[in-house]
Amino acid sequence: MRLAELSERSGVSPATIKYYLREQLLQPGALVSTRQAEYGEEHLRRLRLIRALIQIGRMPVATAREVITALQNEELDQNSRLGLAMGALPPGPEPAADDPDVARAEVELQLLVGQLGWHKEALPPSAYRNLLAALATLARLGYPHDLAHLLPYARAAVRLAEHDLDSLDPYDSPLEKVEAAVALTVLYEPVLLSLRRLAQAQESHRRFGSADPGICDV
Amino acid sequence: MRLAELSERSGVSPATIKYYLREQLLQPGALVSTRQAEYGEEHLRRLRLIRALIQIGRMPVATAREVITALQNEELDQNSRLGLAMGALPPGPEPAADDPDVARAEVELQLLVGQLGWHKEALPPSAYRNLLAALATLARLGYPHDLAHLLPYARAAVRLAEHDLDSLDPYDSPLEKVEAAVALTVLYEPVLLSLRRLAQAQESHRRFGSADPGICDV
Repeated sequence: MRLAELSERSGVSPATIKYYLREQLLQPGALVSTRQAEYGEEHLRRLRLIRALIQIGRMPVATAREVITALQNEELDQNSRLGLAMGALPPGPEPAADDPDVARAEVELQLLVGQLGWHKEALPPSAYRNLLAALATLARLGYPHDLAHLLPYARAAVRLAEHDLDSLDPYDSPLEKVEAAVALTVLYEPVLLSLRRLAQAQESHRRFGSADPGICDV
Repeated sequence: MRLAELSERSGVSPATIKYYLREQLLQPGALVSTRQAEYGEEHLRRLRLIRALIQIGRMPVATAREVITALQNEELDQNSRLGLAMGALPPGPEPAADDPDVARAEVELQLLVGQLGWHKEALPPSAYRNLLAALATLARLGYPHDLAHLLPYARAAVRLAEHDLDSLDPYDSPLEKVEAAVALTVLYEPVLLSLRRLAQAQESHRRFGSADPGICDV
């Protein structure tokens, strides 16, 4: 298909597609003349991923390029590519190295990793640092962040990760699998956070909602 | 305690505390002279919440004030206050009303709510709209968002919500409970998202990591 059709089918304007081509986020089409290129389904798929990363995940273009470069690296096996691509996903705040709360949080985090039987060599450093920063913040503000509080979160994450990896089965090629993994990781984050808030409201309603004798007077 | 001690114990600068006082995020201290006020533990606790909302949750001051006003409304029962405070937490993108993807997403979402036996009157509108927008995006980009994909996320959210509400038991007064609920909701979001990425990497390592015969050659 030509650029106009690619634009129509992807919902991305021709100007934006040209920008993604210049920024090497989108692979070039096959040249059919000096001024015309032909695009295929793989371009449509890539545009979908780019939109997930940039428009939904609010990722800077440079970061999105890193993610996309990582997932195209055919010298690596699928797990390494996925690891690199996920590792390039946007970082959160960097924990300060000399912060005593970070040191304490690291102790809790290592207990958690041990308890879960996780392999240390397969923990993406950016996600690990983000988690450490989040736990140090909880510690600094005096909120609970011990193993008893973290384990239910970790167990939920483990079950979701199994489900997430199962969701990749329908994608055929390794590149498609890795692309879908990155897109679904980003796109399901707001789903998970919204569902948690909805579930909290339901649970609060169940526990406090109708038990409060004053509720009918309001 | 005086302002200087409140600043030292909270880690918030005196200038920032004065700003929070002016913006009515922090309740005024008890005046001990025309120029001096006395602050208590409830001010420390409130500052902790404000930092969770503004510094960690990156909430605009006006939104934080809405959340704090809602949780102080003593005319309401605890569930309504919690609902109002959570409902005031920052909204995501508003789904477009005339978008056919939103209409399709709404059908899936209603199936999900029915399947979970959730009470419609206890669904915070902002979280519901965010979820709808996220599902519409998945639909628009052609990624799966059907009941089979959503249910494991919803079930994880339900289990976490039970755990979150249990975590409030140690807080004594209704106001403390609601403050902690709002802070923990915001502060555990990055914990959950980081843990999900770590768990995905572990699961990917388990499935693809050592099974790939080419891995030793890299």
